[in-house]
Amino acid sequence: MDKVNINQKFNLFHELWTPKIIGELNGQYVKLVKLKGEFVWHKHDNEDELFLVLKGSIIIKLKNKDIQLNKGEFFIVPKRVEHKPVAEQEAHILLFEPKTTQHTGDTKSELTVEKLEWI
Amino acid sequence: MDKVNINQKFNLFHELWTPKIIGELNGQYVKLVKLKGEFVWHKHDNEDELFLVLKGSIIIKLKNKDIQLNKGEFFIVPKRVEHKPVAEQEAHILLFEPKTTQHTGDTKSELTVEKLEWI
Repeated sequence: MDKVNINQKFNLFHELWTPKIIGELNGQYVKLVKLKGEFVWHKHDNEDELFLVLKGSIIIKLKNKDIQLNKGEFFIVPKRVEHKPVAEQEAHILLFEPKTTQHTGDTKSELTVEKLEWI
Repeated sequence: MDKVNINQKFNLFHELWTPKIIGELNGQYVKLVKLKGEFVWHKHDNEDELFLVLKGSIIIKLKNKDIQLNKGEFFIVPKRVEHKPVAEQEAHILLFEPKTTQHTGDTKSELTVEKLEWI
């Protein structure tokens, strides 16, 4: 029952591509993640996934187009849609998605973290 | 399958206390609302509700304490917890909550809007 300051939470970690949980409601998590470089192509069979850019910009590559997302913009990747986030410079992202969501979806890679951490 | 620019969406409406829907995922809505003044005391029997401040500041009054929320901060009001948002100056808020959520919860007032609009 406390408020959350998003910038303070971003200051608590430095790892890239490893979402941190900062809130839970209605079976969903609010997460923060820092991105730089290229992630793996993946999809989520059962979960839609919201990416909101809070710092910098990213491209969410889809199979048929690229979504350029700047600060203050979000995109919802529908379930079963293959996507690959890319960030030329470090970008800070808020994610909103079901608690069941694995960050690398159906793709296992060296980036996969099985159990995400609360901060 | 398009991105959403939050500031552009805020420019599309001026009404206070009337959330507008800007996204849908996993049975939840992303909404924007402009607040100024005092809302009604209410609760949601089945839905947790996230308030993220994007401009200005608000107080979410609970029965046992006040939550002061500034820009970049969020608070999740758990289901069944009575609350009353108050904003001295106009504040801009992003809400995450289940599609079933009525904005005035179990309280009907002249502020109640039965069917919210997509923008």
